[in-house]
Formats: sequence, structure tokens, C-alpha cells
Amino acid sequence: MALTKQQLKDIETHLVELAAKEVGPIIKEKAGTLFEAFDDKANQVDLVTAVDKKIEAIIKDSLAKQYPDFKFIGEETFQPGDTAIGKEPTFIIDPIDGTTNFIHGYPYSCTSLGLVENGIPVCGVVFNPHLDMMFHASAGNGAFLNGKPIKVTERDLTLQQSILALEAGSERSSGSSGDDNFDIKQATYKNLLSDQGAYIHGSRSCGSAAMNMCFVAAGKLDAYWEGGCWAWDVCAGWSILTEAGGMVVGGNPNEWKVPVDDRCYLAVRGGCTEPMQKKFVENFWSQVAGKLKYHW
Amino acid sequence: MALTKQQLKDIETHLVELAAKEVGPIIKEKAGTLFEAFDDKANQVDLVTAVDKKIEAIIKDSLAKQYPDFKFIGEETFQPGDTAIGKEPTFIIDPIDGTTNFIHGYPYSCTSLGLVENGIPVCGVVFNPHLDMMFHASAGNGAFLNGKPIKVTERDLTLQQSILALEAGSERSSGSSGDDNFDIKQATYKNLLSDQGAYIHGSRSCGSAAMNMCFVAAGKLDAYWEGGCWAWDVCAGWSILTEAGGMVVGGNPNEWKVPVDDRCYLAVRGGCTEPMQKKFVENFWSQVAGKLKYHW
Repeated sequence: MALTKQQLKDIETHLVELAAKEVGPIIKEKAGTLFEAFDDKANQVDLVTAVDKKIEAIIKDSLAKQYPDFKFIGEETFQPGDTAIGKEPTFIIDPIDGTTNFIHGYPYSCTSLGLVENGIPVCGVVFNPHLDMMFHASAGNGAFLNGKPIKVTERDLTLQQSILALEAGSERSSGSSGDDNFDIKQATYKNLLSDQGAYIHGSRSCGSAAMNMCFVAAGKLDAYWEGGCWAWDVCAGWSILTEAGGMVVGGNPNEWKVPVDDRCYLAVRGGCTEPMQKKFVENFWSQVAGKLKYHW
Repeated sequence: MALTKQQLKDIETHLVELAAKEVGPIIKEKAGTLFEAFDDKANQVDLVTAVDKKIEAIIKDSLAKQYPDFKFIGEETFQPGDTAIGKEPTFIIDPIDGTTNFIHGYPYSCTSLGLVENGIPVCGVVFNPHLDMMFHASAGNGAFLNGKPIKVTERDLTLQQSILALEAGSERSSGSSGDDNFDIKQATYKNLLSDQGAYIHGSRSCGSAAMNMCFVAAGKLDAYWEGGCWAWDVCAGWSILTEAGGMVVGGNPNEWKVPVDDRCYLAVRGGCTEPMQKKFVENFWSQVAGKLKYHW
């Protein structure tokens, strides 16, 4: 039995309170203070702190009390081999998205609290306490920034006149050292930016997938292309984006429909017609310089 | 006769008021509303709006009344061939830094109001009304964010454990189409990011040189490397950065001292010893993949 609109709104409200009252203040207080205390998680640029783990425990406890029947997937407790995302309601959360920013004090760390049902993102809350930006949405209830409905200015969407979020990420093995995802990304950036290529208005990188998704949702960026991030990085933002008229497709060409754990995404803003969005997607894909491959 | 510390503080106060009361509200109100009305200034990604010109006139008038003997250089009224920057006090201002962000509504547009004397940045005010961040400083008087002294957390500075601001910018001629600045930048980014290279913590791009300088000043970023921006993009931020313990050197190797209109810069944060800053600079320069060349 699917969750009702009202149930989803109640969950959204609970997640907003949790983010505002319990999680946000810790992120704000601790950002930029832990430079000597991080771990190199998977490699020397994939960083995690004790605060990530502490916040995940707070969120997990709160959700287990309020929604004991829902499944829970969190970045810090996830183990490769854990059951894949199923049909049942499942919270997919990142206690701190933008951990490198958090460690350095760059004001783009946030908490990202998402919910999927039947594998589809149906509720999302992203809170950046440094910029005091609370994005929230649930299916059928609209998307909001700090309680105000997000309205994306109606305007044409073209690849050349776009600003795109493009991130180097933390998996950057090049040449003979491993897969060629990093090289494909760099070549694609060049295709997009060069005056011999798509010559887009510009690229931006804030170091947080969740914030990028939300900025696309709000129409402040036109699209966000990513390979290598995880379901918990995009789940909440995905829900917010689709409620604001945007769409998410695959980061590789011709993948019009991808699961939330695909790890390769292209997120596109609203404020224009669906044929215009689809044309944009096709134009973007034509610039992708190879097939990105990531494993869950 | 050099300006006194008190005279510089008075100028800083005047610029802060001008930014907060007259310029900031216009930028905040108009951002994201002018998508149909921009001009392609020098090429199809170098954009300007009527608002840039209007704000520059407001600033020029205010400064001419208050400081009739000072010279004035502004982005929108500057003409190639204008007298170079001399020894006399000269305001160097960008009415809206981050014009592409301004047009798209990405919240990184700001006003950048700087003053040089003897060619050296001695006062700077950068105000981003979207994030409500007012950075301000003058020589000998310290650097401030929203009236609070900027204190950069003391910690080691190394290339590998750094976050750098890196911008694609608007001059992106590639290969046979012109100079090779764009290709040198792209190759340098790869050197910095790859696990076969410096493998830095990350790169960020907000699309505003003035904001990058200020984030380095505040220690939220470790450094900012740029080729292709102008004196008005960096002058104010440069003053704020040096007052906060940072340094600016050339973007090309071995250029320890560059003029404010050099167009190639490496800005490095404080919070560490000068030998550590200099070692960082040398390590950074070793990654630069060719000689950047820009003309004033």
C-alpha cells in the first residue's frame, strides 16, 4: 500500500524538524574545526569524521522510533553487499554531504534526508545550516526553500546558454592506475567548456551533490552531471527536483530511466517544456566522451 | 603622501555603506530576472547587463563626490588603452562580479570595491547580498566578515590536503583557434586532481573571483589559481586576503611579485607560517602545465 500524500507531508515535516533542530546545529558548530581528526576513508581524498558517524546515529534513532517499519540506508553504516533498495519505504540518508567542505569550513556541507518507495524518491530534505537554506519536498506536495514554494523562472533551456554543476569527486584514478572514469569526465568537461565545443555559459562546483541537486531544483543551475556519487548523495535532492518540475536521467547516453543507486546521473531543471528538457539531455549526452562505469 | 590608517578606515566604512545600502539591494532584487536581456560582451559567454552599467554609475558618482582627487577604474567604463594604474590612490571596482551567476540567479554575484595606492591594494569591500556576506578590510586595520574579525584557523598548508578554487572563466579558446591558455588550465587541473598527480582534496568553482579571494582570506579555501581575470575582479579581495595573513603571487611559476593588473594570480590563505605558504606556492607552480599569457 503506497504512502498517502498526507503521510508523505508528515514525514517531510518530521525530517525538516530533525534537520533544523538536531542535525544542522552540529554541522554548523563543528564545520572547519576538525582538520586534524579526519580519516581517509577509501583513499586519501575520501574523508570522513567522527561527526558523520555521530549524526547518522542520531538520525537513525529518530527514524527508527517514528517509523519502525521503514528500512534505513545511511552512508556511514552502509556495507557493500547490503540488500539492494527494494519496494518498501526506505530512508536513504547522508548525515553530512560535502564532508571535505565540512572539514575545511567551506560553507557547502549539509544534511541530506531522503525516502524512496518502490525505488522512487518520494520525500527529501536538504539543509545547509551555513547558508541557512532548507530545501524540502514530498510527492504531490510541492517543493520548498525555507517554507516558500520553489518557482523556477520560465525560460528556454539550451546547452550553450547553461550553467552546469560539474564535480571532480573523490574517485580520480587516471590512465593506467585503474578505470578511466576520471579521464572521461575531464574530456567531457573540455567538450562542454571549449569554444570548439558546446561553449556553455559556465561550470560550477560546490563539492556537495545534494546542494547541486537543490540548486538545479531551484533553477539557479541548469543541470548537474555526475558519475561516482551514491544514492544517499542524490536521493533527497532528486525528490525535491522532480517536485520542482525537473527530471533525472542517466549520466551515460540513452539511459532515460535509472535507479536511485545508479551512481551516474544527469539532473535537469524545470521552468521549460518537457520536449525542451529532453532536447537538452540529448545535446548534453552528445558531449559525453566515453562510458562511465561505477559499481554499487 | 600616503593615506593614513584612519583615512583608510574611513574609506572602508564609506565603501561598506555604499555596498550595503545602494549596491547590494539592486543586485539582490535583479539577480535571476534578466535572462532575456544580457549582451554577449566580448564573446558568447562573456556577459553584461544594463544593471552592471547602472551600478557602476552609482558607485562612480558616490566616490567622485566623496573623493574627488582619486582616480577611478571600473569594469564597465574601462577602455583598452586607458592609462595604466599609477602611484596615486585609485579605486578599482567591479559593480557586479559574477555576472553570469547574476543572470542565472546562482547566489554568487557580489560587488567588489577596491582601492590601490602605489599600485598596492590597501582597501577592499566585497558584498554578496544573496548570502549576506560583507567582507571588508583596509591596510593596518585588519580583515572582517560582517564586522567580525576574520581569524583563520591555524593549521598546516600542503598541496595534497588542500581545496583550491579553479575557474574555467570566459576565455576558452582551444587548440588552433587562438592562444593555449584554456588548454594549459585544463592540463593543470588534471595534474592537480589526478591520483597520478598532486591528488588534492578537491577543487571548487563558484564563478566569482572576488568571492574566491574572500573565501581564501577566510581560510574556507586554501588557495585560488586564476588566469584571465582583471584587476577589478581581484583588487578588493586581495586587500582583504593580505590583511587576513594571506598572500598573492603570480599564476605562472617564479613570479613572486606581480602587479594588480597581471591577470594571472595565485592567492594563498594565512593560518600558517610564511615558509609553509612559500613551499605551497612552489609545489603548486610545479603542477602548472605551461605559461599563461594574457594582455591588459
